[in-house]
Amino acid sequence: MKIKDLKKLGEFGLIREIQQRVGTAAHLVKGIGDDCAIQFQREGWELLTSTDLLVEGVHFNRQWISMEELGRKSAAVNISDIAAMGGQPKSLFLAVACPIEIPVTELEQFITGFLAVAEEHGAILAGGDTCRSLGPLLISVTVQGEVETGCAICRDGAKVGDAIYVSGTLGDSAVALTDFLAGRNPEEALLQRHNRPEAKVVLGRQLANGKLASAMLDVSDGLLSDLGHILEESGVGAEVELSSLPLSEPFRRRLQEAPELIDLALTGGEDYELLLTSPHQGLSEMAFEGGKLTKVGAICRQPGLNIRQADGSLYRCSRGGFDHFS
Amino acid sequence: MKIKDLKKLGEFGLIREIQQRVGTAAHLVKGIGDDCAIQFQREGWELLTSTDLLVEGVHFNRQWISMEELGRKSAAVNISDIAAMGGQPKSLFLAVACPIEIPVTELEQFITGFLAVAEEHGAILAGGDTCRSLGPLLISVTVQGEVETGCAICRDGAKVGDAIYVSGTLGDSAVALTDFLAGRNPEEALLQRHNRPEAKVVLGRQLANGKLASAMLDVSDGLLSDLGHILEESGVGAEVELSSLPLSEPFRRRLQEAPELIDLALTGGEDYELLLTSPHQGLSEMAFEGGKLTKVGAICRQPGLNIRQADGSLYRCSRGGFDHFS
Repeated sequence: MKIKDLKKLGEFGLIREIQQRVGTAAHLVKGIGDDCAIQFQREGWELLTSTDLLVEGVHFNRQWISMEELGRKSAAVNISDIAAMGGQPKSLFLAVACPIEIPVTELEQFITGFLAVAEEHGAILAGGDTCRSLGPLLISVTVQGEVETGCAICRDGAKVGDAIYVSGTLGDSAVALTDFLAGRNPEEALLQRHNRPEAKVVLGRQLANGKLASAMLDVSDGLLSDLGHILEESGVGAEVELSSLPLSEPFRRRLQEAPELIDLALTGGEDYELLLTSPHQGLSEMAFEGGKLTKVGAICRQPGLNIRQADGSLYRCSRGGFDHFS
Repeated sequence: MKIKDLKKLGEFGLIREIQQRVGTAAHLVKGIGDDCAIQFQREGWELLTSTDLLVEGVHFNRQWISMEELGRKSAAVNISDIAAMGGQPKSLFLAVACPIEIPVTELEQFITGFLAVAEEHGAILAGGDTCRSLGPLLISVTVQGEVETGCAICRDGAKVGDAIYVSGTLGDSAVALTDFLAGRNPEEALLQRHNRPEAKVVLGRQLANGKLASAMLDVSDGLLSDLGHILEESGVGAEVELSSLPLSEPFRRRLQEAPELIDLALTGGEDYELLLTSPHQGLSEMAFEGGKLTKVGAICRQPGLNIRQADGSLYRCSRGGFDHFS
């Protein structure tokens, strides 16, 4: 962009600059630049929609993440909700309230990151809104996706006897955040997990197409909190085996110094891994293009969520899940 | 709600409370409570989507509007974008970043207003997001609607010779805002226009179904600015007759005291009236269920936007349209 000052560029100038960087998509009749985006509808597919807020000082700190990564993360965490239903992301809507002092070049980096992640998943930026903010930087993203009719994987389908699986590893993002909060720089691998989370779209699609999951969501508030949603919606209980939690090498190293960090694998947010239940007991051994699954427990009739240690005793976690108002 | 403190109610408590107040809709497979809302798609209709940000201190001041009215307005201004395409609103997504000190009862009033307007237009709250805000109250609304395939009225269809029409009256909302900014209380009729704007959905549907408009949008940034969008997108110019602008009785009274207020009818935002162009020259005489249209000018070949006074001379407006970053 040639104009460096947001005030000089203006609202409509900014929208035009963004519009010029966005391509076209077969499903999109009309994108940025009118009162609404217009999209085709097609039978045989259901429309999925999710909206997320990211607020400076609550969800992110600009000292800890580059604007490009923030753009990437804003798109990825929202697309992750489509992955969590087994859907294919199609369109994104981006609303930004921007402090006037943020240089246009930084906004450009934000858009670069946002559009890169959208493109990686075959989705297009189809609309949005901009205004100034007198306080923090605010980002609101709405994603629309599609899933074959009747194939969406909801939170309410877990059945007694189902195995519980999680993709990837847990707690890495939370360790990075803990480091930042303690004034330390996290090591690169953990930092990447915090600043560049990946939406597990390919894995979600495989699970939906294969009808392999009875319930699913993405781990945004922490394993215990998010599994709690499945249990509540499905009217069942669960037992999780502490020793089975998938942990990364960097996480295991940190655990040796500070064993209490295990609670971050249970309650740390922003993993954006898929958490699912399934009547199939052998998914851990299956090769999925979109990532590996680890069996971490089982659904049981008795309400509540118990964490079992290797010696058979119950583990009591010292932290709750994340609640935005507590 | 029984719990008065947002901190005690918590994020998931708040979502549950809202969920309980929302009904069902035939097009909605699954609403609030999962990673995404799920909706049916149907052939023959196109999907319309628009997103709006409302930021405290930028778009509203809580001293000037009740929380119920703010809820109403948040829904109405977003639904107005569906009306501006000639569409039927179907689903709303509401994201709120809320300062922790706002009492739950006030949030309840906000939701009451929001849901009332949604219901008036046959739309349903299908999802959202909540978090705390360390600064201002932030509201992001995304609306989805439908229009018969090929019938959406865009900004780029204005043709030379088309008449320009606007619904309702212009400038009332801006006069109310001017009063507030000057420390005066606006009179009731003007205040209502500012705090309780109405989305012109019925009128928009009539125009789309009758294929009566070549281009359309809603007046949110002011007549000149918004008409400018149509001219730019359509590659045409326009002439507007100053004496033909539809003005309310309260506005005319104020104009007698302060003739310069006429510029608010040209540039004042937040009217949420429909502004359209049409090859049909007699729409002002037609009776529409959804409101009256007034012919205010014509589309011409020569680029630019001229405002003609009764004596034939050009009028030079002293204010520009609204730009969020200028």
